[in-house]
Amino acid sequence: MDKTGKIFVVGIGPGNIEHMTFEARNAIEKSDVIVGYKTYVDLIEDIIRDKEVASTGMKKEKERCEEALKYAEEGNTVSLISSGDAGVYGMAGIILEIVFKSKSSVEVEVVPGITAANAAAASLGAPIMHDYVTISLSDLLTDWSLIEKRLHCAGEGDFVVCLYNPKSKGRQKEIEKAREILLKYKKNDTLVGIVRNAKRKGESCVITTLEDMLKYDIDMFTTIIVGNSHTYMAKGKMITPRGYAL
Amino acid sequence: MDKTGKIFVVGIGPGNIEHMTFEARNAIEKSDVIVGYKTYVDLIEDIIRDKEVASTGMKKEKERCEEALKYAEEGNTVSLISSGDAGVYGMAGIILEIVFKSKSSVEVEVVPGITAANAAAASLGAPIMHDYVTISLSDLLTDWSLIEKRLHCAGEGDFVVCLYNPKSKGRQKEIEKAREILLKYKKNDTLVGIVRNAKRKGESCVITTLEDMLKYDIDMFTTIIVGNSHTYMAKGKMITPRGYAL
Ligand SMILES: C[S@@+](CC[C@H](N)C(=O)[O-])C[C@H]1O[C@@H](n2cnc3c(N)ncnc32)[C@H](O)[C@@H]1O
Ligand SMILES: C[S@@+](CC[C@H](N)C(=O)[O-])C[C@H]1O[C@@H](n2cnc3c(N)ncnc32)[C@H](O)[C@@H]1O
Repeated sequence: MDKTGKIFVVGIGPGNIEHMTFEARNAIEKSDVIVGYKTYVDLIEDIIRDKEVASTGMKKEKERCEEALKYAEEGNTVSLISSGDAGVYGMAGIILEIVFKSKSSVEVEVVPGITAANAAAASLGAPIMHDYVTISLSDLLTDWSLIEKRLHCAGEGDFVVCLYNPKSKGRQKEIEKAREILLKYKKNDTLVGIVRNAKRKGESCVITTLEDMLKYDIDMFTTIIVGNSHTYMAKGKMITPRGYAL
Repeated sequence: MDKTGKIFVVGIGPGNIEHMTFEARNAIEKSDVIVGYKTYVDLIEDIIRDKEVASTGMKKEKERCEEALKYAEEGNTVSLISSGDAGVYGMAGIILEIVFKSKSSVEVEVVPGITAANAAAASLGAPIMHDYVTISLSDLLTDWSLIEKRLHCAGEGDFVVCLYNPKSKGRQKEIEKAREILLKYKKNDTLVGIVRNAKRKGESCVITTLEDMLKYDIDMFTTIIVGNSHTYMAKGKMITPRGYAL
């Protein structure tokens, strides 16, 4: 092929196709090849008929990027699929790094998507209406001591706290430690929203407190939103007021 | 009318219709009435023909919510339009608060959208690949002392920092003070991305440093992303590595 290839890094949003943007869909439709983790590629199977699909298993981020780059070097337009927003603990950073290190001239365009915090927030009500932090509890790529430090800073600043990767089979204790740190700054009865599979099949949504949160199921498909000192609940919705006089 | 009304609070994303989700468009299409700030309603004029449009000027958030509620009480399905994500410094919180206070039984559903931080990040490259905070510099509804405290905590935790509402005609000094606080923790050469009109007509995008950032135009259509200590630039893109060994 003669044309220069291109890689779209496409955030497909939290799951159901309705929460994808038109731009994400356009990028996928323009692509010759789709590369992505199988679970995410399956979510969009309706729109990728007739395309070459190179999906791989989990924890192969680097291999997936190398594959996307290989196809693009051959002149293809490639969509590298990420869940949520590709730029939030997703594939945008690593593909840019790999393309730059390879000295390839393939163009990379990041197509934003709805990230889990915004999807979970919408299902809970309006918990991130005021300043918030996003922290991943996964210490696979980050020292746990830095994660702890950030939890302290988030507590100290009375931020709303969105926790990604709260728990997995191999990481069970991190969420307990995170809760303990936040309890040094936030009251027992601070509201906590636990959203599993936000905006996709099987969504479940609980509003509880820092005190009680560990009584509920938390896993790798869950995002947790811990309120600030003003967050309250009304008619089953979690609301962090912005401060309007009403 | 006999049917019970409903309010969708719809985040339309950063601007151009392509960055809206299918769900947002569906909600708007299902609606009898569209309520929103004129600038945002104009952005979606192509899809709201044949609908009653009640758009109002700026700084009338409360009036807009009351109007949406009035139409919904009359049995209409109403879309209350917010830019970006309605749940991030948008209309989701205030409409929930107003509906609950009014003791109305009108249902409110929040439809998530791409928020400015994710839109700006996509245009810059991948600056929010690691833990980040979102802070609004507007002290219209928040004490400046709390904003300062949060900036200190964000600096202390080596977070990536996304600044919304950095500057307006009436608020010129806040961004200077914010920069000074961040400089207590972050080096002069920390990368800063300045994105004006992200993902919409007239987008401009600069990557500079904490030292030099004030040399560039910053206004109320701008989102600023300040990197962490590992953020670097390659081929014009701003990248915060997640930590993969590459
Ligand atoms: C590796 S991160 C990927 C995040 C993704 N790029 C995003 O922007 O949402 C995986 C974590 O995201 C969160 N997550 C992703 N999709 C979710 C959903 N639909 N519901 C709840 N949490 C989700 C969970 O915390 C999960 O452990
Ligand atoms: C009142 S807040 C509304 C935020 C909106 N709800 C969201 O989620 O993006 C307004 C601020 O959002 C940021 N903003 C919104 N849209 C933007 C865009 N397209 N480009 C850059 N910044 C934007 C700017 O910092 C602006 O001052």
